Amino acid sequence: MSEIPLDDDLNQFHEHAKTGQTNEAVRFAVDLLDSGTSQASIISNVLAASQREVGDEWQRDEISVADEHVATGITESALYALSSKIPSDPALGSVVVASAEGDWHSLAGHMFSEQLRSAGLAVTFLGASTPSDEVARFIQRRRPDALIVTCNLPIFFSGVVSLTNVAHKMGIPVLVGGRSVAYAPERASRLGSDAFTTDLAHVLSTLARWRASPHDVNPEPIVLERCVVEFESQSRMLAQAAFATLATLFPPVEDFTERQRNRTLEDLHYIVKFMAASSYVDDTTIFIEFLGWLDDVLRARGVPRVALILGLRALIPALIGVDPGEGRLARKGIEFLCDFG
Amino acid sequence: MSEIPLDDDLNQFHEHAKTGQTNEAVRFAVDLLDSGTSQASIISNVLAASQREVGDEWQRDEISVADEHVATGITESALYALSSKIPSDPALGSVVVASAEGDWHSLAGHMFSEQLRSAGLAVTFLGASTPSDEVARFIQRRRPDALIVTCNLPIFFSGVVSLTNVAHKMGIPVLVGGRSVAYAPERASRLGSDAFTTDLAHVLSTLARWRASPHDVNPEPIVLERCVVEFESQSRMLAQAAFATLATLFPPVEDFTERQRNRTLEDLHYIVKFMAASSYVDDTTIFIEFLGWLDDVLRARGVPRVALILGLRALIPALIGVDPGEGRLARKGIEFLCDFG
Repeated sequence: MSEIPLDDDLNQFHEHAKTGQTNEAVRFAVDLLDSGTSQASIISNVLAASQREVGDEWQRDEISVADEHVATGITESALYALSSKIPSDPALGSVVVASAEGDWHSLAGHMFSEQLRSAGLAVTFLGASTPSDEVARFIQRRRPDALIVTCNLPIFFSGVVSLTNVAHKMGIPVLVGGRSVAYAPERASRLGSDAFTTDLAHVLSTLARWRASPHDVNPEPIVLERCVVEFESQSRMLAQAAFATLATLFPPVEDFTERQRNRTLEDLHYIVKFMAASSYVDDTTIFIEFLGWLDDVLRARGVPRVALILGLRALIPALIGVDPGEGRLARKGIEFLCDFG
Repeated sequence: MSEIPLDDDLNQFHEHAKTGQTNEAVRFAVDLLDSGTSQASIISNVLAASQREVGDEWQRDEISVADEHVATGITESALYALSSKIPSDPALGSVVVASAEGDWHSLAGHMFSEQLRSAGLAVTFLGASTPSDEVARFIQRRRPDALIVTCNLPIFFSGVVSLTNVAHKMGIPVLVGGRSVAYAPERASRLGSDAFTTDLAHVLSTLARWRASPHDVNPEPIVLERCVVEFESQSRMLAQAAFATLATLFPPVEDFTERQRNRTLEDLHYIVKFMAASSYVDDTTIFIEFLGWLDDVLRARGVPRVALILGLRALIPALIGVDPGEGRLARKGIEFLCDFG
């Protein structure tokens, strides 16, 4: 899945990170910096690329979640080491970087914060999961030039919009970035982003433009479709209802271990959350891409595709009771899986 | 609440952390190390002590959650900087350090991991929230001398027991540590800890003892009381039922903003989770201490104690339907709040 070629630097760093060699990984990253590679490039092409590889290897069931945690901790160590080597010279203005409430994966936002810092911005990174009213109090006092919201998984879109709205209310422009919107600027725009965030250079030039001529912020809040908000709030209940139905459609469920039952419930729960995310920004691709990913994950673990298709079938009666549009989306998902190679 | 005297070093570091001065805070910690203070002492008496201060200041409503996130990020930076200064020499064996699934606050476990590392152990820190079956696969392969489970909040006790059980099944001894068991070794013991973990020196001497003469691990799993597990699994539903009752007992609830409603629901949810934690280890202090803390938090934000007492009253009918013992615990909580100064 990774689009970055696996070059030697990435390979070497990745090997250290995967095998738990903290010192070697950190030294390797710092040596790259000392030999003239820019911090931004090391972060994008080595650290972030290694994290993507880790995700792909987990998807293929080649490494465990624990291995993934070890590699992430080591990548974070390398990131801190690189940061401490770059003197900060905040001449180009100030930004606050935040993640939506409930989003506990902060490494990508941390990486982006360091790239902005080394480019000359004063950056306050608020870390994982920050409630929007707390971000509101904070930016009210700090008055940054912009709020940057990082979001890697679409399931946090409603939290992103909460953050966007509090900033806009104060006249502070917002940039929404991260993997969930990376190749789809219209998603970012629907979530309230005041400009696209295709890459670091683009973000820097946007901030420079706003600094030269303040961006005119629309204080009107983004309003998410009420029935989708309602639908998302029932995601856990819908997953439970679907699980009960699945047991009648797919007899092996009766013999599932507790672990298998929990995993299946969790998968159904994510399916509903990704459906809601798709609906928020009116972009079916989000749901379909997620199904493709989940199908890979399940098949690497010996779960046949028919189980996933039956899971979607089991969801439909529950979905239709809440929102017929979501029922249609689930059917599209089934069609996709039936046609998929 | 902090038991460490606020000495000059702590004061200076804390000021930097609180005001968002990353470079100054990191340099200050590294200078302390260079001037001869041990890494373990800087971590305990400066970094961890500053984090406790941050918690106390938040409790008193002097700083926001966002300020807390900033200070935590800076403390983490200082921790990484200190770690990179200490060459690792893993001569005293190996341990894996993990947090229970759902526990996303990893800084305390990270600090303890670094203290163990600088004392000469090979440490693999798995970071925040790791599912027990993933920890099982990992330690099966690595065979560490011990699994160390850090747990700062009692609401993760059932996850701690899952971790304990997978390690014991493989004959690997377990140490349960962290604030939730710090001054109550019998709690750690009920969660399956094979020894007490009062302080770093104690942990090191225990590990040395086990290295000299392997600890005889009881492979029988710790079994948590079934009705409490059931009770905890219904915590969200119980909180919702109590909220509905509270609205009839405490009319201002009708006029709550959405934010206030969510906070109140969350408080009720935590109350139920702390009740379950108390019951798991048969220690009422956990629940009573939590109520004292919550009362401080609420009163600092202008919420009168009577609201908290009515919240507990509102919970009782729902609790009794599930587990009469929990109803009695809630009454004890009300008595405590009525007598409390």
